Amino acid sequence: MQIAMLQDRILPLADLDPAHLDRGTYFGDGVYEVLRSYNGKIFALQDHLTRFANSLAAIEITGVDIKKIRSRILKAFDTAGFANAKIYFHITRGSAPRSHVYDADLKPNFFLTVTELPDDSELKATGIAVSTHPDWRWKRCDIKSLNLLPNVLARADAAKKGCEEAILVDEAGLITEGAGSAFFAIFGNVLQTTPLTANILPSITRVFTIKAAKNIGLEIVEKSLTVQQAASADELLIAVTTKDIVPVVKFDDKPIGNATPGQSTNLLIQNFHTFTT
Amino acid sequence: MQIAMLQDRILPLADLDPAHLDRGTYFGDGVYEVLRSYNGKIFALQDHLTRFANSLAAIEITGVDIKKIRSRILKAFDTAGFANAKIYFHITRGSAPRSHVYDADLKPNFFLTVTELPDDSELKATGIAVSTHPDWRWKRCDIKSLNLLPNVLARADAAKKGCEEAILVDEAGLITEGAGSAFFAIFGNVLQTTPLTANILPSITRVFTIKAAKNIGLEIVEKSLTVQQAASADELLIAVTTKDIVPVVKFDDKPIGNATPGQSTNLLIQNFHTFTT
Repeated sequence: MQIAMLQDRILPLADLDPAHLDRGTYFGDGVYEVLRSYNGKIFALQDHLTRFANSLAAIEITGVDIKKIRSRILKAFDTAGFANAKIYFHITRGSAPRSHVYDADLKPNFFLTVTELPDDSELKATGIAVSTHPDWRWKRCDIKSLNLLPNVLARADAAKKGCEEAILVDEAGLITEGAGSAFFAIFGNVLQTTPLTANILPSITRVFTIKAAKNIGLEIVEKSLTVQQAASADELLIAVTTKDIVPVVKFDDKPIGNATPGQSTNLLIQNFHTFTT
Repeated sequence: MQIAMLQDRILPLADLDPAHLDRGTYFGDGVYEVLRSYNGKIFALQDHLTRFANSLAAIEITGVDIKKIRSRILKAFDTAGFANAKIYFHITRGSAPRSHVYDADLKPNFFLTVTELPDDSELKATGIAVSTHPDWRWKRCDIKSLNLLPNVLARADAAKKGCEEAILVDEAGLITEGAGSAFFAIFGNVLQTTPLTANILPSITRVFTIKAAKNIGLEIVEKSLTVQQAASADELLIAVTTKDIVPVVKFDDKPIGNATPGQSTNLLIQNFHTFTT
């Protein structure tokens, strides 16, 4: 008889909850998004839905109605009732006995959580420390997939070093992005960040950060940074959906500027908030 | 209230089955193995357990008792009662609300299935067609992790082309391995395969294939092949736990040899079976 085992419990494979046959677990065969709300309003919902549709298309998960996803998100957000909510959702290709090759008629699994975001004003006031880690990720980081083990390992390494984020460095010694964020350096009047390729996520917060930078008169340079260049920047910052812009005050144990959030970064944070209020 | 949503169903996050909070699904934060039995006896169990322990250590999942895993495997195998069984198992870091950084006290989740292997004598007699695909995988393919989306995408591409396996090619144009197999070429008296690095799995079937090759008098060369070199080989084959050696008779639509399994490959298959009986 085909059987399954969960810890020490043996049961017929046929009796297994489909959650245990999710291709998300077997293969990471799914894509996800993270949204947040500011004061009761979801930020950049359409941008996230567009990117989600792109991720689904890239891995050929078909038959997902994005309008339905949108209404699920809104319903869940309303039900939870948080002013500053974090909304995580993913779709996997479906549940089936493990096989790399999949049937076209699999029914995708939708999963979502809504939790409350903590206040991040202290984080923004003090800034964070980051450390570098080799970028071990796959070659299609433009797809927001569930294959996140390299990100987990990099972040665990950063945590051991007392850092909040890992900044990933490719084999050529160039910074791609953070394990869960976009990465920026400021040199005088210039904001520099990695150009969009298949090696990084097309970050939505990155788009708004660049917009804020233009608003405050910074020049934008999309060019990868070496570790040495980043360490010598006037200011560093990361951008992530759940916290928008966070100043980086320590980079691989080296203080950036005077180890407090820089003037341009603070202006960027203020300007970003004009988009979210 | 913190909530979750499964398809259209909303529920309190606290009421969610832990299976839905598995870091295996969120991140692919786990490692796996596939075993098989021949005529009622599990093949190379200790080798697989050793590799599994290495994978766990590489991603710092600690506190797993390998002896306990071994006894679970044997119990499940006995319960299922298949002479030729496929045993899949994985361990994930545990279930918890989604966060890249994990608590050290998480309890790992063990999951296993036992299914029956189909007879593969026809497959071995006719051989298979394979097609090449860019190797999009991460930089630690020596770890047998659940981050398998690139493998799924490559295999789906192969299936569309009527092929049984995708042969992965790195950015330098060199073959690494199959999406779910080791890859070998035979030129005259030489068996050539990719050397072991972090770019490929330390395949156990590869070890036994090399042993069989020595037994039949082939010389072993561990050197990566270009696509052009592979296409010009006298014989090609893949090696995979569930089917040991499978002849490759078509490579990117080009017949290999006379498009039937070659003489050395057939000898390898025969010799391999001396290990399994």
